[in-house]
Amino acid sequence: MQKKKASTKNTARVINEKPIILITNDDGVTAPGIAALVEVAKQFGTVVVVAPETPQSGMGHAITIGKPLRLNHVKLFQDVEAYQCSGTPVDCVKLAVDKVLHRKPDFCFSGINHGSNASVNVIYSGTMSAAMEASIEKIPAVGFSLMDYSFDADFSLAQQVVHDVIHKLLKGEIPKKGLYNVNIPKIAEQKYKGLKACRQADAKWSENFVERIDPTGKKYFWLTGEFNNLDKRKDTDVWALNHGYASIVPVQYDLTDYDLLSKMLGE
Amino acid sequence: MQKKKASTKNTARVINEKPIILITNDDGVTAPGIAALVEVAKQFGTVVVVAPETPQSGMGHAITIGKPLRLNHVKLFQDVEAYQCSGTPVDCVKLAVDKVLHRKPDFCFSGINHGSNASVNVIYSGTMSAAMEASIEKIPAVGFSLMDYSFDADFSLAQQVVHDVIHKLLKGEIPKKGLYNVNIPKIAEQKYKGLKACRQADAKWSENFVERIDPTGKKYFWLTGEFNNLDKRKDTDVWALNHGYASIVPVQYDLTDYDLLSKMLGE
Repeated sequence: MQKKKASTKNTARVINEKPIILITNDDGVTAPGIAALVEVAKQFGTVVVVAPETPQSGMGHAITIGKPLRLNHVKLFQDVEAYQCSGTPVDCVKLAVDKVLHRKPDFCFSGINHGSNASVNVIYSGTMSAAMEASIEKIPAVGFSLMDYSFDADFSLAQQVVHDVIHKLLKGEIPKKGLYNVNIPKIAEQKYKGLKACRQADAKWSENFVERIDPTGKKYFWLTGEFNNLDKRKDTDVWALNHGYASIVPVQYDLTDYDLLSKMLGE
Repeated sequence: MQKKKASTKNTARVINEKPIILITNDDGVTAPGIAALVEVAKQFGTVVVVAPETPQSGMGHAITIGKPLRLNHVKLFQDVEAYQCSGTPVDCVKLAVDKVLHRKPDFCFSGINHGSNASVNVIYSGTMSAAMEASIEKIPAVGFSLMDYSFDADFSLAQQVVHDVIHKLLKGEIPKKGLYNVNIPKIAEQKYKGLKACRQADAKWSENFVERIDPTGKKYFWLTGEFNNLDKRKDTDVWALNHGYASIVPVQYDLTDYDLLSKMLGE
């Protein structure tokens, strides 16, 4: 059983014996993926949702500093307090802590993203940036992503993985004070082999902008790209996902390259 | 002397014996900081500028995937080919490689940012995200930031530091295949103590959204915050900057927390 947290600023609606779980995403508050995550997380604690009102894929760790933010109550999830925010996924976490919960939640879960955030995608991902923002605040956080970009993606295996990860986090079988990037393969449930702790694969996108001419005769460009895994070893998230596992990569926001630093310091 | 690079796709304008230096920023192509960087970089190679047409501070590693991008030629810098792009700093680097240079530049420099990108600011920074995007493409890259947010900031010390860093990079005194976050203190030149290799300080922003009511009676929020350095050791960028040094932090885009991964794997 969770201990009651000491806080003078708790709102009445979120005071109880269960952990407070903040949920956000980057596909927007109406995306099926966040509904799938809420459904599982509700079994473990009191869920509060603060998510973007519009899709924010590829927003990385963007924050809104040049304009004001709006926050509006929505009724989208049964028995769950939920808000849509005009900002980015990172804005959602900041606003949730300061203006909705008036305290830090016990956990922050982001997703379930429609599409992979494995490998270098973690850098571009609004889903993972929201989880990282929580981690900077020392809140245990996980980003969940399913390797299926479609709106009608089947989240049943993903929900099973989410349940497994949250259960292990609460039990301490996965270290609580971490930040995790969990990706789930798009495979049939009977082919699923389990959760695998991995490192981030060294991969990149090869860009190929499509060049077009608009009706007024001016050029414009659309970003397209191809994912290239440069990393053939078996301890990566990409390998795990290609071999029937869900991947869990522990992530940090200290970007210092310590090997290179030692070299520079002549150590 | 630099070796001539083999490439079948070089544009006639950028074929020469000097290194090709791509310059971008997040304050926008008209910001004084990018002009200060161009002025110094021109002494070391052929500079091409591709920078956002509007300020993009706090954009993190955002990319534009839901709408097209525009790229327009501008005449802002003497003897330097320059373009403004409607996208984010990361978009600028992607477009520059694919549609302007048609090859990878030899170096990518981003900045000089009006304001600090030390410590955890590296995560939110468009300046550093542009440099990181270049690094993912295996292009040696540096983001430069001056700890002065004002438009009329004095860039003379910053230019001295930029010159020093580029010189050391070209000589190999700073390892060439790296990604670096360089911050310059706002101090008088005679008080400057030199360049110091550091790690990223563990710090965070404490948010405090200002809550206001718009003319139609609806609530809105403005992000404000206070920077809190939780890290009191002397090997950090924040310590260096507070003690008269410019900081150089080697940065990596592999976000794996290897210590935590070992623990999870029971190693």
